[in-house]
Parts: sequence; C-alpha cells; structure tokens
Amino acid sequence: MVASLRLPSLSSLFLPSVTRRSPAVLHRHHHHILRTPVFSASFSAQTTVSETDDRVDTQKRNRVQDQAVTPRSKDFNAWYLDVIEQAELADYGPVRGTMVIRPYGYAIWEAIQDYLNVKFKETGHSNMYFPQFIPYSFIEKEASHVEGFSPELAVVTIGGGKELEEKLVVRPTSETIVNHMFTQWIHSYRDLPLMVNQWANVTRWEMRTKPFVRTLEFLWQEGHTAHATPEEAEKEAIQMIDVYTKFAYEQTAIPVIAGRKSKVETFAGAVKTYTIEAMMGDRKALQAGTSHNLGQNFSRAFGTQFTDESGLRQHVWQTSWAVSTRFVGGIIMTHGDDTGLMLPPKIAPIQVVIIPIWKKDDDRAVVLNAASSVKEALHAAGIKVKLDDSDQRTPGWKFNFWEMKGVPLRIEIGPRDVSSQSVVVSRRDVPGKQGKVFGISMEPSVLEAYIKDKLDEIQSSLLEKAKSFRDSNIVDVSSYDELKVAISQGKWARGPWSAGDKEELRVKEETGATIRCFPFEQPCGIKSCLMTGNPAEEVAIFAKSY
Amino acid sequence: MVASLRLPSLSSLFLPSVTRRSPAVLHRHHHHILRTPVFSASFSAQTTVSETDDRVDTQKRNRVQDQAVTPRSKDFNAWYLDVIEQAELADYGPVRGTMVIRPYGYAIWEAIQDYLNVKFKETGHSNMYFPQFIPYSFIEKEASHVEGFSPELAVVTIGGGKELEEKLVVRPTSETIVNHMFTQWIHSYRDLPLMVNQWANVTRWEMRTKPFVRTLEFLWQEGHTAHATPEEAEKEAIQMIDVYTKFAYEQTAIPVIAGRKSKVETFAGAVKTYTIEAMMGDRKALQAGTSHNLGQNFSRAFGTQFTDESGLRQHVWQTSWAVSTRFVGGIIMTHGDDTGLMLPPKIAPIQVVIIPIWKKDDDRAVVLNAASSVKEALHAAGIKVKLDDSDQRTPGWKFNFWEMKGVPLRIEIGPRDVSSQSVVVSRRDVPGKQGKVFGISMEPSVLEAYIKDKLDEIQSSLLEKAKSFRDSNIVDVSSYDELKVAISQGKWARGPWSAGDKEELRVKEETGATIRCFPFEQPCGIKSCLMTGNPAEEVAIFAKSY
Repeated sequence: MVASLRLPSLSSLFLPSVTRRSPAVLHRHHHHILRTPVFSASFSAQTTVSETDDRVDTQKRNRVQDQAVTPRSKDFNAWYLDVIEQAELADYGPVRGTMVIRPYGYAIWEAIQDYLNVKFKETGHSNMYFPQFIPYSFIEKEASHVEGFSPELAVVTIGGGKELEEKLVVRPTSETIVNHMFTQWIHSYRDLPLMVNQWANVTRWEMRTKPFVRTLEFLWQEGHTAHATPEEAEKEAIQMIDVYTKFAYEQTAIPVIAGRKSKVETFAGAVKTYTIEAMMGDRKALQAGTSHNLGQNFSRAFGTQFTDESGLRQHVWQTSWAVSTRFVGGIIMTHGDDTGLMLPPKIAPIQVVIIPIWKKDDDRAVVLNAASSVKEALHAAGIKVKLDDSDQRTPGWKFNFWEMKGVPLRIEIGPRDVSSQSVVVSRRDVPGKQGKVFGISMEPSVLEAYIKDKLDEIQSSLLEKAKSFRDSNIVDVSSYDELKVAISQGKWARGPWSAGDKEELRVKEETGATIRCFPFEQPCGIKSCLMTGNPAEEVAIFAKSY
Repeated sequence: MVASLRLPSLSSLFLPSVTRRSPAVLHRHHHHILRTPVFSASFSAQTTVSETDDRVDTQKRNRVQDQAVTPRSKDFNAWYLDVIEQAELADYGPVRGTMVIRPYGYAIWEAIQDYLNVKFKETGHSNMYFPQFIPYSFIEKEASHVEGFSPELAVVTIGGGKELEEKLVVRPTSETIVNHMFTQWIHSYRDLPLMVNQWANVTRWEMRTKPFVRTLEFLWQEGHTAHATPEEAEKEAIQMIDVYTKFAYEQTAIPVIAGRKSKVETFAGAVKTYTIEAMMGDRKALQAGTSHNLGQNFSRAFGTQFTDESGLRQHVWQTSWAVSTRFVGGIIMTHGDDTGLMLPPKIAPIQVVIIPIWKKDDDRAVVLNAASSVKEALHAAGIKVKLDDSDQRTPGWKFNFWEMKGVPLRIEIGPRDVSSQSVVVSRRDVPGKQGKVFGISMEPSVLEAYIKDKLDEIQSSLLEKAKSFRDSNIVDVSSYDELKVAISQGKWARGPWSAGDKEELRVKEETGATIRCFPFEQPCGIKSCLMTGNPAEEVAIFAKSY
C-alpha cells in the first residue's frame, strides 16, 4: 500500500523527461542496495593502490564513476537527480512532490542559514514565529494575492476529528497573518519600523515538482517589515536583495544577476519585486531569491495603520523577502560536473576529506595516526575536515565517493608520505594530475596556511568559472528575431524593452522564455525596444527558467 | 469577521479559570494601547529621579507595577498570561489555540536551540528534515500510536483545489514517516546506528490550550535513532534524557527530576518513556522533555529491518526524544515573581540592561557617552547587553519594564557616576537595596569581571532557590491517605509504588494527580507499596500537572 503509493507515482512526477534517463537512475529508490555492486565490488576488484603519481588509476576510476552518476553533459536532468540521490542530499517523501532533506543536504541549508541569520540581525531584524494555519478568509483579502495563491493551497478541513467551521490554509507565505498581527502591534510611528523574520516551512501545491527546486513543502526564511514611509520600504527591499546578492556571490560562488521583475512576473500582492537570477549549468534561469516592496497593498486590505508624528492615521508601507531550500538546487546546478557535486568551500559541510592509504597491515597504524594528527590540526584551525578511515572501502572507492559528494579538497596520506612528513593535496575543481600537489608539509602551521589558501582559491575560481560561463551565454539582442535565435540556442537574451504585458506573454508563448529581470546594471546609451522599436529606458533579460 | 473569530473565543480558551482574572488581564489583546497610560503616564507624573540610594521610589514603582502584571501570589494563571503579554513573549494567533512567538520569546527558544544543537551533534546526531504531511494510513500502522494520536490530528483533505485521494495528516510527531524512510536507508548493520534530529513545527489538535505549555501548533526538536541491539537503543534513550537533564539544570536553572514514566503515561508506541519533570511556581508539574525507547514497535509495523553480521534479517531497535517550546513556559513558571519574568543569565536574550539617568540637558551627552562605552566594553566581552537610551520613557519606567522582562542585571549610570567613573549594578533576583551595589568601577576589565561573576552568581542562585522550593514541596508518603493530604495541599507526593494501572487511574480520578515518574534517584531500603502494601522496588512521584 505504502510502496505503491510512493514508487511509481513519484518517479514519473519528479521527472518531466523520463525517456532519456540512464538505467542506473531508474533504480534510484534502491540506491543503497545498488551502490554496493556499482561502487565497491567492481572497484576493489579493479583498483590497485600504489604510491605512484597515479595512486589510483584515473581511467578505471572514471569508468566506475560513469555507472554511478549520469554524466551532466549527457542528460542534465538525470544527472541532477542522480547527484541528489548518490550524494545523499535528499530523498523522495511518501506524499507526491515532497522531499526528505538528508543530513548532507541539510548541512548545506544550515550553512545558508548561519550566514543569512547573522546578516538579518546585523540589519536590524529579529526572528520570530507565526502559526502556519491561516483562516481561509485571510487569503481572500488581498485581491491579487488570492488570485496568485488559491490554486496552490493545501487546506485543513478536519481538526480533532471534527469538520472545521472555517477551513484553514497551510501557509503558502505569511503576508496575511503577518498583517493580522501587525495591526495589533503597530499603533504609532514609534512602533515603526517593525522588522522581523521567520525560518519556517511553507506549502504550495505544485503540479510539476523537482527536488529542492520546486517541492510541495519547502523550507525558507521570510522577512516581513513595516515602515512609516514608502521611501523606507523601498530602501529596505533594495537592502535585502543586496544582502542576497552578496550572499550568492561570496558564499555560494553564484554570479546572480540582480534586478527588478516585470509587472507580469511581480509577486502576487507586491508593487515591485526584486530578484536574483542565476544561470544553471543547462543555461536555464533559476530565481534564487526575491525581495518585494508591498507598498500599502496588504496594509490597506488588513487595516494596518499607525498614527504619524502629526497625529494622522496612515497605512504602513511594507516589504517581504525570501530565500528557500531552492538555493541548494542552485548550488548543485551551478557548479556540478560529470563527476557529481562540486561545493564552494564556504558552503561545503566538509571542506577537506583525508584519505589514509596503506597496503600492509604494518603501515595501517602509522598512517592512521598521522591522518588523525592532520585532522586534529585542521579541525583546530576551524576547517571542516573529515577523516574517512573506514576499512570497508578502498582508497579508490573513497576518492570517487568524496569527489561525487563535491568535497573541495582531498588530502591523501600513505606510508611514504608519513616518512617524508608530507601529504598529497587534490583539488576537486581541477581534475587529474593538474589539481594534485605532492609534498605539502604536515607541519600544522604550514599545512593549515596551505589549505586555507587553496580553499580561498577554489572559492574564487568557482565564481570566476561561473561568471565566464554566464557571460558567454548572454547575448545582446536588438530585435525579436535575434531574441528568438538566442533563446532557441539555449542562451539568455538581453535587449531593450518597453513593450507591454501582451508582448511579454507573446514572447513566452512563442519562445518559452520570460523576462527574468530588468537588471540593476544597465548599459549606457539610447535604446529602442526590441519588440516595438519605441524608445526603451532599460534592457531586460529573457530566458527559459525553472 | 476576523476580530470576532479571535477575541472572544481565545480569551476563554486559554483560560480555564476566567473568574479570578484581574481587570488588566481581560484587556490583554489591546496591551499596546493600554500600556502607555498604565506604565509611562502615571509614572512620569509620580517618579522623581534622584541620585540618592533610592534613585527611584520603590514603593511607587511597585504600585505602578501592580497595575501591569497581576501578582503571581494573587493569581498564578493570570500572572502567567500577563507576563507573556507584557514581556512581549508571545501573542494569540488568529486560529483558536495557536500562538505567535514574538522576538523576545523566540530569542529564548533560540538560546535553547543553540545549546541543544551543539550537544546533539557532539553525541553523533545529524540534523535533517522530514516532510510534515503524512499519509493517513501511516498513522494507523502502529496500534497504540494511532490510539494515542488520532483524536488530535489536523487533516488536509484538499490540495491544489481538489479533494485528495488519501487524506494527509499534519505531523503530530514523525515516528511513522521516519520509519518509512528508514526502511529505504537501512540495509545492513553497517548502516547502524542511524541517528538524526529535526527542528520542526508539529500540530496537535488540543482542546485546552495555554501559551507555550500546550498549543495547537508548537516548535520542537525530535530526535530519531535506529540501532542494532536493544542495549544500544536503551543507552541512547538514557543518554538523551541525560542531555536534557543537564540542559535543564545548567542552562535554565530548572532542577528537574528525571525518571521513567509509568506504563499508563508512556508515549503511544514506546516501550519505555523517560522524562524530566519540573515543578512550577504553583507546584504543578510540567513534563519538560521526554526520551522514548521504542523497542521494535515501529520497526515491526513498518518493516524496518537490517541484515546483521551473521546474515540474519532483524528489526531495528529505536528511540525518539523531544523538547519543545513548552520549555519556555517552564522557564517563566519556575523563576518568575510578582514583578514579572526572571530569566536565568545563560538563557536570557538580554543579560544586562544599561539605563542612563540625567535630569539636565547638559548631562545628557556625557551620560550617554559613558553608557555607550560601557555597552561596547561588555558587548566585546561576549555579554548580551542592551542600552535603553530612548528619550520617550523615564528611568523609573525603564526600571520597571526591564525588571518585568526579567533581565538579570541592570546597570545605572548618572552624571555623578560618570564623575566617579563608576556605575550602579542591580540584581533582578534580589529586590530593593539588597540587590544594589554602588561604585563599581567603569574600567572595562574590572566591570566585565564583576558582571560575569554576578551573572554566574545569579545563575547558581536561581537554581538553588528553585531546588529548595522543589524539595520543600515534595512530601514522602507511605499510605494513600498521606498521598491524598499532600496532593490536596498542592504538593508532590513521593512514595513506594508497585500497584497496577487500575490503582494508578484511581489516584488520578480521586486526587487529580498522576505518576510523574519513577525517579532515577531512589532511596535505599525495603519499601511497601503505599496503595497495596505489597513489596515495592521503587518510589514514584505523584503530582497534578500541566
């Protein structure tokens, strides 16, 4: 009963394109059973571990790796799902479209939380918690909000064994209940600005789901603020999209493009929506975070008023802003490669993995002892380090496994390394010999400095790589024909735009692309709209998106 | 519509005993409007601020304070609700029995999270996240589990505008969905132990609610583990109740009594439940955390099996354990007094509040400047400090306000203090002159050391006070008559017990008390059951509880 509920429905649901999937992927629900033969059995038979330059035969390793994760270059979607499963980031929940976030995936989310939580507090926000059940009538109060959200609602109709008098919505977002409470906390200008945030789960009954990117239930933070003037609200909305932008660049090495959404793409209930748009490895756009200037839309609907300094009653000006577990999907799809996940050091749950290598039992204790010392030294220096000392797997298997898990640096320690008091360091982002450096001293201060330096280098390098990928895939267009060509090539099109909603919807229907944003960074000079030829003040970016 | 939904229903629902409530409390939904006249207007008229020993007239302050918070000694329940409102810990949500956790209350929860999160990781657990929607059929799989939880369920029947084929339960706890997932992750003994935790919201359709103590939705952490042997599971269950016990004593200064629940009080689905029981200021017991040895109950219901070292298939042995936002209620009801909240320094969002005092405008800049320096110095030393430099309120108002908010230490700085380069320090837990020390040097290293020392002293003192309160209210009984007397006096009764479920239920019916636990710490000597006179191996503690 349970199994039938889960397996067939989900595999088709999370997979718009089932046809192209590799055989390994079709069995992903049994991956633990599968992995043993795929990884270890075949590997221990094939691999010889020697302390030559090629310690582990690269070709053989790659051959094994191929069986585990569909190469990204072969099938992006299958690769994405394989990585999520094999790197143990998430699994499918029993209810269609839900996701279980596994420890390794959750640790990435915790890194996101840790960073943003500090920034939110630095910018004057307090955490709090609003209930997730919202009276149905609340949702109906703001006209465009109900229009946007009512098709996606999960509704509680039974509580404590009884039919409820008023149905309860499981929050899809909290603007309505926030305003209901704000009316009770805000009385005069002295109560403003009111700036809060909550970390919570939200539910949207999505039809097409994809792990992390779009799930029926997801985790996010939602900031909600109320201000005395429209200028303050606008400043806040911009401040928060800036926080997100900085986070994306500096922590996740994702070179997002920040800008304003078109009217069509603005949040249901907002006056303006600011967004950060990220280019994934398949060149589709991912909306990675949004910040809304809500104007007085909700405060008018809920009567959220304050008495200003001159004694007049006014409606407050509001913002809301959010980043969700979708960001984890963005990290996977920005940096991953054929081998699997590739994590930016600042967001990686494990920054360095140490693999001890020995053949003779005599060497075992000596190598493990040295590996432990190295681990302790790095740990004490604040580096997130793991020593994989299990006896169950060969070093070659471990190399593959931790590369697939995207760990930025690997330290290898064998008996000869112990003799020379040095280690071998390999970069996840530079494959093969090129990314491998021999003879790094084990002396703690030397090694720490070297590792920290390398982690910084990898962090920068991932950002630069993503930037140049992004820039080489954005095409400047000056006509609709050029836009169509660019989109059909899978690229982003950037061009002057001053046409209306109708034309925007036409582009969507004819090309599948939408306006991702009017970027904050605009080119100089006079422009004419690519669609109408009329004067255009801004360029917009068009792309297909998740 | 919204207002009518909220106000009348909630005020009665959160209040089992409406009759005894004070007038101030009945208006708690409009507290911001109310507070202005209650606190500041009456106060600025009455208070003279002088730099005498009595800087602020204590009697007058208390008179004003009385109007704000119902004295605890007068009406414990009204006091509790007043404190939650006036100290801005929480507010009522729009749906019956739900609660909005406000920033000051949420910061206490964050302190709880910060501590426990570290301990959970130190003891080998990883955080993750399970979906909150559980197929109805899951709940029915474990017989006693469904019996325990089905009356309390919130059920989603509509999703995306359509009636669902299978109804979804909003998690009341996650053992069922956890086991569903564990079956997919656990294959051999090598996958064990599996030890995870999640921070999440849960929903239980409670009929009688009370902020923090029992709400329709609450926040908690739930740990879930699977082991290869019953011994390991038992060890884990004990380990986690020990973590909770240590947390209660060392962080929250609550001298809980740890022990085992009776069969009647054991969690629905568990073999054994361990608990920490706290005595509140009204001497009712609060179950503040539980750890369950689930045996194989869920693994048998869900088929969670592993292949052991000899190749045999076995069901795993499991535990689960939880602490919730209820703990915040426990902190309030353990330490608070007539004046309001009293927070143990280790859990206080603000450990020290600085109140600058001046009369002449000339003094303002000098005093504020010194206060800022003191603030910076303490902040740099890792002390959670707030400078209340607002011009809106008098120092007397601020004294009252921050005392009511339970801040452990207050620093007062006036012009004469600046001249002598010293400050006045007042303890929240020692009222009046006795708790006030003059002439503490402003010199950062001296002041920091003094403040840290005082905070430690307060932390210990609160624990000692709570311990002696607890011990003076536990009566050793050897007969049912003695038990009845003790309970009727509002005390806890401790006595030998080996009787059955029927006798236990009889005690509940006749006295209102239940077995809170068989404490781990047991007296020596031969005992005979207080009810039956038969030999009894253990004493049990009986009390009325929340």
